[in-house]
Amino acid sequence: MAGILQRTLKLRAALRHVSPHSTFFSTATVGHSPVDRRSPFLPTTSLQFGVCCRKLQAGADRPSPAAAPERLPFSRVTPEDVAFFRKILPGRTITDPDLLESNNVDWLKSVRGSSEVLLRPQTTEDVSQILKYCNSRNLAVNPQGGNTGLVGGSVPVYDEIILSTALMNNILTFDSISGILTCQAGCVLENLSLYLEERDYIMPLDLGAKGSCHIGGNVATNAGGLRLLRYGSLRGTVLGLEAVLADGQVLNCLAKLRKDNTGYDLKQLFIGSEGTLGVITAVSILCPRKPKSVNVVFLGCETFEQLLKTFQLCKGMLGEILSAYEFLDSECMRLLNTHLKLPNPISDCPFYVVIETSGSDPTHDGEKLHNFLDEAMTSSLVTDGTVATEDSKIKALWSMRERVTEALTHDGFTYKYDISLPVERIYQLVTDMREHLGDRAKSVVGYGHVGDGNLHLNVTSPTKDPALLAAIEPFVYEWTASCHGSIRTTSTTVNPARLWASSTRTRLYQMT
Amino acid sequence: MAGILQRTLKLRAALRHVSPHSTFFSTATVGHSPVDRRSPFLPTTSLQFGVCCRKLQAGADRPSPAAAPERLPFSRVTPEDVAFFRKILPGRTITDPDLLESNNVDWLKSVRGSSEVLLRPQTTEDVSQILKYCNSRNLAVNPQGGNTGLVGGSVPVYDEIILSTALMNNILTFDSISGILTCQAGCVLENLSLYLEERDYIMPLDLGAKGSCHIGGNVATNAGGLRLLRYGSLRGTVLGLEAVLADGQVLNCLAKLRKDNTGYDLKQLFIGSEGTLGVITAVSILCPRKPKSVNVVFLGCETFEQLLKTFQLCKGMLGEILSAYEFLDSECMRLLNTHLKLPNPISDCPFYVVIETSGSDPTHDGEKLHNFLDEAMTSSLVTDGTVATEDSKIKALWSMRERVTEALTHDGFTYKYDISLPVERIYQLVTDMREHLGDRAKSVVGYGHVGDGNLHLNVTSPTKDPALLAAIEPFVYEWTASCHGSIRTTSTTVNPARLWASSTRTRLYQMT
Repeated sequence: MAGILQRTLKLRAALRHVSPHSTFFSTATVGHSPVDRRSPFLPTTSLQFGVCCRKLQAGADRPSPAAAPERLPFSRVTPEDVAFFRKILPGRTITDPDLLESNNVDWLKSVRGSSEVLLRPQTTEDVSQILKYCNSRNLAVNPQGGNTGLVGGSVPVYDEIILSTALMNNILTFDSISGILTCQAGCVLENLSLYLEERDYIMPLDLGAKGSCHIGGNVATNAGGLRLLRYGSLRGTVLGLEAVLADGQVLNCLAKLRKDNTGYDLKQLFIGSEGTLGVITAVSILCPRKPKSVNVVFLGCETFEQLLKTFQLCKGMLGEILSAYEFLDSECMRLLNTHLKLPNPISDCPFYVVIETSGSDPTHDGEKLHNFLDEAMTSSLVTDGTVATEDSKIKALWSMRERVTEALTHDGFTYKYDISLPVERIYQLVTDMREHLGDRAKSVVGYGHVGDGNLHLNVTSPTKDPALLAAIEPFVYEWTASCHGSIRTTSTTVNPARLWASSTRTRLYQMT
Repeated sequence: MAGILQRTLKLRAALRHVSPHSTFFSTATVGHSPVDRRSPFLPTTSLQFGVCCRKLQAGADRPSPAAAPERLPFSRVTPEDVAFFRKILPGRTITDPDLLESNNVDWLKSVRGSSEVLLRPQTTEDVSQILKYCNSRNLAVNPQGGNTGLVGGSVPVYDEIILSTALMNNILTFDSISGILTCQAGCVLENLSLYLEERDYIMPLDLGAKGSCHIGGNVATNAGGLRLLRYGSLRGTVLGLEAVLADGQVLNCLAKLRKDNTGYDLKQLFIGSEGTLGVITAVSILCPRKPKSVNVVFLGCETFEQLLKTFQLCKGMLGEILSAYEFLDSECMRLLNTHLKLPNPISDCPFYVVIETSGSDPTHDGEKLHNFLDEAMTSSLVTDGTVATEDSKIKALWSMRERVTEALTHDGFTYKYDISLPVERIYQLVTDMREHLGDRAKSVVGYGHVGDGNLHLNVTSPTKDPALLAAIEPFVYEWTASCHGSIRTTSTTVNPARLWASSTRTRLYQMT
């Protein structure tokens, strides 16, 4: 732990003194770390959890030397290994390349691994046996949930064995008094939502990828999503978890208590650790009551400053019923129109806002919303808007925000940056980037969660373009560092001086 | 870290297989721990943070061998040490025994240390210098906040130097857009509340001890308090913290981002670590908007089952405006009447509930409350009740819940247990304990936070009574373990088989 702490101190120091030519992470520093691959957390050979970095493009058989770390000296899978896996997972050990294809490629089809074995455990004991065996055999493992991630963290870099949680999809318990749900890691978020809705509860998180993403992956990546503003982060709502460490040891932190101060809260280390500390096999999560009334408003603003002022007004006037405040810019709208044929539900504006309220009394919520809209229109903060109370229209309005990612995939190769910034600076980066790149980019778009200060910055080009990438980076890192922000990216570059600011997974590569 | 994990695994195993005669934590196990006193976290000699256990009674000059660990071989403070401290903290190095008295004794006056030096740093740099020096000199240190804790964790066991955060009371920044407050650890909770209220915000936590407790201590003990039901735990609302490690190194995790997924969330280890990993010197915390409308209801129920059903009804009908649901039993009411002359605001009942609502619209909140009370009365869930909307009456009703602790101090020697349990079992323990103890106890009372499944079980006797204690323990631990609950206590016993379930601080003693 001391090692992690020291490295964090250094990382934070690096964040303050970023230099694109620094060689801050020397091999020597890394090699002497107390949390190196010999610790029980990252034991000698079995985990390639922390190894990351991206291949240059889909379909590449080997990553470019400039884009990926060298393959570490893990064993290759032998027929004896496969025989062992078939023995413990009969019918759930997949080696057919066609069946493996979708597990080797990420959702964006931007990176591709070359795994030859997919394991589909059903129980924690299965996972434990797999990891224990792989540890003893020095085989690398890539845990995989719904494979919906946008930063390439869910597929192998080389030939790691894929350990999928897809068959670990049982709900274990639900307590209708406390609202505490306990389930296996492979439960699909939407299935959990449907299960809970029948019982008058909802999940505290919601994502565009809900139809495929696994709750274990949500926790492993500390997904924020669309309800964070209202129900807070998974650090508060995840009450317990169970994980299997690299050597097969099971860590049971599956507390179902709302308050548990017994010792250090080790489960927090796994939340957001992206599979680097172990495989999450089960979680218990505190679920809120299903709201009796939901409304969605789609508004247009002339400036980002007005959009922020509208957020302030909204927090004050909608108060406890405000459950989402999301934004997209006119470039996003153009892509939605062009690529998905989604029409703008209001008149053209530079900025759009999706506001959701959820509450326990439809009349009260309607009144609050009416008063807020009245004030926002009167004070000219918003120029146009539409309200939805019916399910179908609510879904249609939400899709304007949720389907931006999909629209981007049709616009060309996309460089994606998931950035946390002080909320008042959030859009300046998009403006500055647009100006900085000029004609070199096809589109530069910004959208995201205003309530959480979370910007999705996306830059597209007709095809992969190293010159464009060189123009984006380190510019984006320096800009973010200057505001003490944090960042996650699909960047394929591995300049050590920059990786501190890159995705957790990428950064962890530097640390191991 | 691996060591902590392994020990946690063992602790959890012990929780499942508790035996009062086990010697689970052998000295050998402890001595060989990778997180022993030689790790940077608990370095060779300077920290007695993890040393705990209680002296047998106030005024004892030395703890009973049965009640406390042996004093570890720390150095004694010399005149040279004092001279050094006076040099770096002129006027803030206190050695006058009279002035030290209140820092050596806890609020309940149940335990007493014999420190001869009180240091009052003003800055993080001061704290760093103190710890660096103490580390080099092998001097034990006891960090102290407001000294309001009820489990004796805030005062020295022997002659540890007291490091008080009392003068570290500056608010560093407040962002009125995001509601993020950053302040030094010694800020008194109530002062922060007043500061925020002027700016239309509130603190996300509230405690009976707010007038004295420090925010650093709140975070170090992961205080829940009266608003947890609404605003969640500090694990969600504390966005960042700064801490000084035992060797003087400053760990700056003072992020002011609502979402920050850069690396492992190390600050979580400090939340609830009770000063064992370092001294928290500053925190940043996400504050909610000040509600425009607050109501408090005091209700009486015939049975605990009805009280739970009322809670369910309340969650459904008050929904997003419900901000507290606290209970006390008729024994608590008797002590409030007897010792504090507080009259019962309603007719006598076996159980009482304090419900608080806070929202953004007084009319809407009033209507919701009216409908809920109507339904609760009609369905005979509650037998009597009173509502307060004015500040003075709200305070009076809240004092029925907040002053139970004070009333208990007048009832004799109190054995206190702070227990988390599945909410439907929460009161059964009080009933069972009352039956189990019979005439041996003076009073057995239960009160606490229904919303969080958190019970305060208190047993009083005219004077300290080892026979009574022997009857309470291990009964209370076995009962709690059978429900997979967690517990924190002032227990003075040190039976290793039981300490796993005792306070974090006590348990940590076993671990070091």
